[in-house]
Amino acid sequence: MNEKKLKELLTELKNGKIDVDDAFSILKNLPFEDLGFAKIDNHRQIRQGFPEVVYCEGKTKDHVVAIIKKLVEVSDNNVLATRVNKDVYEAVAAEIPDAEYHDLARLIIVRRGEQRKIGNIIVVSAGTSDLPVAEEAALTAETMGNHVERIYDTGVAGIHRLLSQKGKLDEARVIIVVAGMEGALASVVGGLVDKPVIAVPTSVGYGASFNGLAALLSMLNSCASGVSVVNIDNGFGAGYTASLINRLGEKE
Amino acid sequence: MNEKKLKELLTELKNGKIDVDDAFSILKNLPFEDLGFAKIDNHRQIRQGFPEVVYCEGKTKDHVVAIIKKLVEVSDNNVLATRVNKDVYEAVAAEIPDAEYHDLARLIIVRRGEQRKIGNIIVVSAGTSDLPVAEEAALTAETMGNHVERIYDTGVAGIHRLLSQKGKLDEARVIIVVAGMEGALASVVGGLVDKPVIAVPTSVGYGASFNGLAALLSMLNSCASGVSVVNIDNGFGAGYTASLINRLGEKE
Amino acid sequence: MNEKKLKELLTELKNGKIDVDDAFSILKNLPFEDLGFAKIDNHRQIRQGFPEVVYCEGKTKDHVVAIIKKLVEVSDNNVLATRVNKDVYEAVAAEIPDAEYHDLARLIIVRRGEQRKIGNIIVVSAGTSDLPVAEEAALTAETMGNHVERIYDTGVAGIHRLLSQKGKLDEARVIIVVAGMEGALASVVGGLVDKPVIAVPTSVGYGASFNGLAALLSMLNSCASGVSVVNIDNGFGAGYTASLINRLGEKE
Amino acid sequence: MNEKKLKELLTELKNGKIDVDDAFSILKNLPFEDLGFAKIDNHRQIRQGFPEVVYCEGKTKDHVVAIIKKLVEVSDNNVLATRVNKDVYEAVAAEIPDAEYHDLARLIIVRRGEQRKIGNIIVVSAGTSDLPVAEEAALTAETMGNHVERIYDTGVAGIHRLLSQKGKLDEARVIIVVAGMEGALASVVGGLVDKPVIAVPTSVGYGASFNGLAALLSMLNSCASGVSVVNIDNGFGAGYTASLINRLGEKE
Amino acid sequence: MNEKKLKELLTELKNGKIDVDDAFSILKNLPFEDLGFAKIDNHRQIRQGFPEVVYCEGKTKDHVVAIIKKLVEVSDNNVLATRVNKDVYEAVAAEIPDAEYHDLARLIIVRRGEQRKIGNIIVVSAGTSDLPVAEEAALTAETMGNHVERIYDTGVAGIHRLLSQKGKLDEARVIIVVAGMEGALASVVGGLVDKPVIAVPTSVGYGASFNGLAALLSMLNSCASGVSVVNIDNGFGAGYTASLINRLGEKE
Amino acid sequence: MNEKKLKELLTELKNGKIDVDDAFSILKNLPFEDLGFAKIDNHRQIRQGFPEVVYCEGKTKDHVVAIIKKLVEVSDNNVLATRVNKDVYEAVAAEIPDAEYHDLARLIIVRRGEQRKIGNIIVVSAGTSDLPVAEEAALTAETMGNHVERIYDTGVAGIHRLLSQKGKLDEARVIIVVAGMEGALASVVGGLVDKPVIAVPTSVGYGASFNGLAALLSMLNSCASGVSVVNIDNGFGAGYTASLINRLGEKE
Amino acid sequence: MNEKKLKELLTELKNGKIDVDDAFSILKNLPFEDLGFAKIDNHRQIRQGFPEVVYCEGKTKDHVVAIIKKLVEVSDNNVLATRVNKDVYEAVAAEIPDAEYHDLARLIIVRRGEQRKIGNIIVVSAGTSDLPVAEEAALTAETMGNHVERIYDTGVAGIHRLLSQKGKLDEARVIIVVAGMEGALASVVGGLVDKPVIAVPTSVGYGASFNGLAALLSMLNSCASGVSVVNIDNGFGAGYTASLINRLGEKE
Amino acid sequence: MNEKKLKELLTELKNGKIDVDDAFSILKNLPFEDLGFAKIDNHRQIRQGFPEVVYCEGKTKDHVVAIIKKLVEVSDNNVLATRVNKDVYEAVAAEIPDAEYHDLARLIIVRRGEQRKIGNIIVVSAGTSDLPVAEEAALTAETMGNHVERIYDTGVAGIHRLLSQKGKLDEARVIIVVAGMEGALASVVGGLVDKPVIAVPTSVGYGASFNGLAALLSMLNSCASGVSVVNIDNGFGAGYTASLINRLGEKE
Repeated sequence: MNEKKLKELLTELKNGKIDVDDAFSILKNLPFEDLGFAKIDNHRQIRQGFPEVVYCEGKTKDHVVAIIKKLVEVSDNNVLATRVNKDVYEAVAAEIPDAEYHDLARLIIVRRGEQRKIGNIIVVSAGTSDLPVAEEAALTAETMGNHVERIYDTGVAGIHRLLSQKGKLDEARVIIVVAGMEGALASVVGGLVDKPVIAVPTSVGYGASFNGLAALLSMLNSCASGVSVVNIDNGFGAGYTASLINRLGEKE
Repeated sequence: MNEKKLKELLTELKNGKIDVDDAFSILKNLPFEDLGFAKIDNHRQIRQGFPEVVYCEGKTKDHVVAIIKKLVEVSDNNVLATRVNKDVYEAVAAEIPDAEYHDLARLIIVRRGEQRKIGNIIVVSAGTSDLPVAEEAALTAETMGNHVERIYDTGVAGIHRLLSQKGKLDEARVIIVVAGMEGALASVVGGLVDKPVIAVPTSVGYGASFNGLAALLSMLNSCASGVSVVNIDNGFGAGYTASLINRLGEKE
Repeated sequence: MNEKKLKELLTELKNGKIDVDDAFSILKNLPFEDLGFAKIDNHRQIRQGFPEVVYCEGKTKDHVVAIIKKLVEVSDNNVLATRVNKDVYEAVAAEIPDAEYHDLARLIIVRRGEQRKIGNIIVVSAGTSDLPVAEEAALTAETMGNHVERIYDTGVAGIHRLLSQKGKLDEARVIIVVAGMEGALASVVGGLVDKPVIAVPTSVGYGASFNGLAALLSMLNSCASGVSVVNIDNGFGAGYTASLINRLGEKE
Repeated sequence: MNEKKLKELLTELKNGKIDVDDAFSILKNLPFEDLGFAKIDNHRQIRQGFPEVVYCEGKTKDHVVAIIKKLVEVSDNNVLATRVNKDVYEAVAAEIPDAEYHDLARLIIVRRGEQRKIGNIIVVSAGTSDLPVAEEAALTAETMGNHVERIYDTGVAGIHRLLSQKGKLDEARVIIVVAGMEGALASVVGGLVDKPVIAVPTSVGYGASFNGLAALLSMLNSCASGVSVVNIDNGFGAGYTASLINRLGEKE
Repeated sequence: MNEKKLKELLTELKNGKIDVDDAFSILKNLPFEDLGFAKIDNHRQIRQGFPEVVYCEGKTKDHVVAIIKKLVEVSDNNVLATRVNKDVYEAVAAEIPDAEYHDLARLIIVRRGEQRKIGNIIVVSAGTSDLPVAEEAALTAETMGNHVERIYDTGVAGIHRLLSQKGKLDEARVIIVVAGMEGALASVVGGLVDKPVIAVPTSVGYGASFNGLAALLSMLNSCASGVSVVNIDNGFGAGYTASLINRLGEKE
Repeated sequence: MNEKKLKELLTELKNGKIDVDDAFSILKNLPFEDLGFAKIDNHRQIRQGFPEVVYCEGKTKDHVVAIIKKLVEVSDNNVLATRVNKDVYEAVAAEIPDAEYHDLARLIIVRRGEQRKIGNIIVVSAGTSDLPVAEEAALTAETMGNHVERIYDTGVAGIHRLLSQKGKLDEARVIIVVAGMEGALASVVGGLVDKPVIAVPTSVGYGASFNGLAALLSMLNSCASGVSVVNIDNGFGAGYTASLINRLGEKE
Repeated sequence: MNEKKLKELLTELKNGKIDVDDAFSILKNLPFEDLGFAKIDNHRQIRQGFPEVVYCEGKTKDHVVAIIKKLVEVSDNNVLATRVNKDVYEAVAAEIPDAEYHDLARLIIVRRGEQRKIGNIIVVSAGTSDLPVAEEAALTAETMGNHVERIYDTGVAGIHRLLSQKGKLDEARVIIVVAGMEGALASVVGGLVDKPVIAVPTSVGYGASFNGLAALLSMLNSCASGVSVVNIDNGFGAGYTASLINRLGEKE
Repeated sequence: MNEKKLKELLTELKNGKIDVDDAFSILKNLPFEDLGFAKIDNHRQIRQGFPEVVYCEGKTKDHVVAIIKKLVEVSDNNVLATRVNKDVYEAVAAEIPDAEYHDLARLIIVRRGEQRKIGNIIVVSAGTSDLPVAEEAALTAETMGNHVERIYDTGVAGIHRLLSQKGKLDEARVIIVVAGMEGALASVVGGLVDKPVIAVPTSVGYGASFNGLAALLSMLNSCASGVSVVNIDNGFGAGYTASLINRLGEKE
């Protein structure tokens, strides 16, 4: 019920077309969907180019296939499925032959929307074991229409390799740092640039890494300003957040 | 040692002006500062308008006064001091009469640089007890030259108050959400908008909030994409990161 | 604005005492900005007899006094303030002479609404040190219009004292169990009755109670069905939840 | 001392073979097992319609089959077995052909007692991955004789879907909220209604959910009053507690 | 049903006013308070020589004085109050002049019962900072009628001092080991003797002792068999448990 | 070298069958290199009837077989192997046909020493899932020469079953309580008797039991005096400690 | 590029075999892009005798084979691969027949460099289950050119075995202590000697060892000075650090 | 009892001067101190130049004064007291006028022994707030006779400052890194040098540093080899361990 309809209702009451009890009853029963509420979701219109996303962990193979099929039918956007095992992919591919599988990142991408490459996101990762999460972040950002550059295998124990990339880092709009163990890479990168850094702790490491807790706490306590943190192994979340930030740099 | 000087050195060697051992010795002893390294810090030139920042927790009163005085002398920028007690402020004010004190946020601001107000950062906070951290974030962002809007006292337990602000939220470039207790506000805001959300857990709450741990974990696990997290009570870090993001939206 | 007042407004409109624009303007400015939204909160009309609640921890004395004064002016209900220090109470009492202070529970009660005593809530507590939290629960429930019975000082180490109260326990509609240390009382009570049990862990105990964590985990893992848990030391939350449950037993 | 011996004692007294003081002395010194103790459990008589419950985790297949068979023989009530794998179910079905298996919830139900549907319990869940726990709660409550309604897939990241159900939520006597990740759904639901909310954290989520700890802490710290919490993934406990509460609303 | 009523019932039966079945039925339905239950506590009669114990943490001064006064009046046993501050003691001493105060252990002892010294309990402690807890254990055990020997200041870093006491250790019936920091002393003592060892972790130590958690975990994981553990800083509990064990060695 | 053999050696020396240097050499090469050191271990002579113990977790099958074979050869005592899988047992049985396997407790017992049954140890356990740990405790104690009684399946949620066993409990010298979930059983048993109680937390339970942490903390915080705690699932440690305590009750 | 090759380059330039631009280009393209940076890594030249190290956890079989093959080709040093499963080893051995596999320590060693045995490192371990980590430490140190002595199976519960080795311990330059459970061995060894002790907690133990956390905290809180700690199960790190320390004792 | 005395005893037995029982009795009662055991402590003779150390936290002022006075009397070494408040120092100074107080490090040093300055230890610290711990480490090492160099205020957020010191770092025998917050400095330093690095986490930082836990875990998980860790804020332990290592480099 919008403003106009509400005024009409009040006018009807004033004019005696309805009585007080009826007006009261109508006002009392206004559903949430009315008036302002449809608005809640209309920002989704702005998200053009954004992929439809399916988080597959804990879902059955049939379930995943069904969801992806439906999304491909109803949406004009890319479809991105995360945490997908190979055999789930094969079931999807039987239905959607052009579904791409990225086995390191465990992602399925079905390209349907426009394939833009705006701006500049850099994904930095520390060690070989961090690659699955780094790739989840990088491919998510690419599927969301961003230009992505990768600087991999540049841990703080060989800091010169990182320093030699400072020029590249300065050209990014936003940097994703993926690191396990002690997660120090986020602080070092954060100290080198004045761009927003999104830190992704990974569950890689010996015993007292406690499945990523050490890296998580390290990144939250970064002495470098401009670093914010997403959940352990959440490459998708980092790629998504970086996309939101990168888009701000476009002259839309 | 820059490229030119290195070539000169090699030329001198070629021309017999120095011998191999001398050239080797010079090359071996190149200090880190030379060549590429001065560059490391030159991004600080780009940070014009950024305040000089002093983190005062654990520093003595005399120490704080001395640092702030020196920064005011040597810098053309605003100076921002965080975690300042009132009596430390009074000592500062005796030296720098126009130092402002914001007691809720426990900040000192000495305005010297240009006072810009670019873009649009919104700070949302849940309850009265979260205000000190929210104000630390808001004032940090303002001192860094951003336009900041505040939406306070809008916890998820009275969600209609938040929903009625959706229009405002959609106009922000980046949103800071400050919340203690269960920190659910970050997820709700993150679900309403498609802007980057920086979540700040606060140490406010009953027993099992464990000084902000509950809110921290909650925010890291947000089901809404686009949410990244800074340290517990780290209003400054949120304001700083938001500034980096907000700046991206300017047509520089 | 309650039902009566809304109908009066509509009647005035119908009778020509106000015009449509005025009515629209009033409706539009109802708490929560528009009519649709008012509905979100209109369940509060049903909460007759429920107190207005102020959580005072972390608020200044002046702030608390101001809030309570305003609530007493605008509301027909009891006002309940929790976590109040004695000197804050004295400041309140200077303004509202009939404000009651319960120092063990650190509560202020200003009685304004109807003082009902429906149903039957029993508060069981283990040791003397648990009394502040137990009283917070009991007084909250009483202020919310419930009949409350207390069974105090009945820890599991002297289980016969508890067993001898089984008759009473069977007569309750809902039981609140307040216990620190190992919190075993919740399981024992839960095993004796088939009523909903709300368990409140307290921060009472030696070292490895970790400020109530031991009791909290114990209660969450209760082998007795029918036990649910609120936050450590959250007597208010237990009293409030018990009130919601107790009310269900009334023939409304 | 069993029933027979007690009657013999009383008969001896009646027949004058022993006198009152002797009988009193014997009765006074009866060990705990005797006499009054059957009564401890006699509240179980009131639980008519309640199922017999078997928690199967960690029990062998043979053990589970034997227990269920025996319960079906000796009891007039429904039998509910939780945490049952499919192959255990098949062994049970070989003996009890009409045993139902609910594979999502991993429950066996053997319907024997009266199948009532009283009152109104609503189970709200956030995501697809929370369904097993949500179904464990819902089916437990149904087997215990309650009318149960499900509102699934309504996380806080798409809050309008939840708000559009407010009407339904208001009609519930008690609401079970099942959510993993950050568990914010409990606070949002708790803020919308004035009914008791039982929150069930699930172990669903990325790294720093720490197998449900994040959701658990979040729910314990809910800023909405009226929320109490059961153990991680404890759908059964939530369904059982909700049944106890829902029953209070009947005019017995 | 009290004693008088039960005798009346039996008399009625004897006199034929009621028959055996009625009497049986009434007895069967007696509530818990009646009849046998005094017996639950009658093992307390065996505890002769045991002190009455008051745990004073979190109790007001007046409360402590009142409890101790009452215990001294009604009991023939020693009275032991733990966790007592000096000013609370002074209030007690004003009423009970012969109350002893042990300030290191923060105990009050009022000697009234027989002062036995049976068996042999040894209290071993690691460092000076562990003494308050060690003395709480030792004095508790002494007040409960045990012979207690102290071996203090014998940490594992100077293990020869401990080894030179092996003769003494072999003569103990039970050994209490009090240690903070890494708590290794419990394992070393447990490896030297074949007596039950009760380990008491203390909250003494640098940062990562986490207020006794390190010592607690260390003691729980002792590679020496025969070690069991009480709560952090719980000298009283260790002294009490040791008393129960030591008594077993008496030829009662 | 036991007492008898040492005396034989000295007699041989006295009788001139060996000379001083030989005797010295033998003494010097006694286990642990010199005589003084033998004394450290000579309390093991007193441990007659104590089994040799092998902890098998993390050892290979061949390793376990070799150790057990050797112990059976060199020792006159029973041999007890804990944490043994069935296939390891089968390898042992191929070598030592009379090795007994207790599959619930995962123990191998090879009976060689005197099979005494002194004193009285009671093992109480809460639920079916706690049986493996309870049996590890009970069989350990039996193999160490103690009379052991079992009271199983008596959780606090059905407390009358436990109370009806109070007579038995009073006859024990020491009681082992094995419980998972919230571990409340230890407090209830500890409150019923004045005997030493050894509490064993088990890793049984839903999510927030955190693999036994909830039960462990609960037991450490027991409000009942006389309770000490061993490691999670450490049935062996409880059985061993109980043996040391039970032996004190013998008139040696 | 080592010292010799760099001098050759400079000599060629001096001798006119190459010109300045070529020399500059070569220098500029040295590993790490510019000359200044080469210096960061030139300490690796000093590490003669140090192995190339590959951490294999989380790498695929093909990846490991490729890396090891390449290292063997390009390096004159030993190659050490840690955390290698047997089937990965077999793939490596197919390519490099003289690769050694140490299955307990899960290490591959390819001996290529000089096999020195300098100084004296002692590795002490507590129990059989700690051997894999102890061997990882010992073999790492040996491969790095150190003389290593092992003292195994000497837990604190049989402390005489450790004491009898004091002579050997005094001869070490640095001692590695590997222990799980309560980790007390580090403190005892640290108290016996005045040499640096590197403590390695292992994840061995019953429940409340929490996968090595108990030993870790215990070692960090060691009352013996001179003890520092590496990560849980990090035998490699301990062996590496010990090598760095041991080398200091050489008269280079 | 040394070797000679033991042979005399055996000779006396052989010669019939004592009989078997006497010899047995003497052997059986050899105290631990005899024979080998005095040896245990004789390594302390080697520690010449090492200070006597007093840890003052939790000791009373009188106690500290008495201990220091006694040590100064009986020892020829320096005396070092840690964790000393100013007023405790003043009490010490009244007795020992030349006692030095270092208020930042909270240390007292009484110089009595030889004041050597051997080798080269570098202490690196991150921020101003880490200075107290860094100075505790540096002064401890100096008092123990080491040459110490300080590189302060060189956090990873301004990494060029650290890199410019690489020359100095390479000259150290052992490096102590003191850092709070995320502790990344240890990894960066460890990656730059091939010297043993002792990392000291400090309790400096915002909320989720959890009093140094973040830095501790970060350092334990360092991706740089050669890093070992001491307890949070344990500057003394780091200085002591570094001294043991530095001494190895002397040609003694």
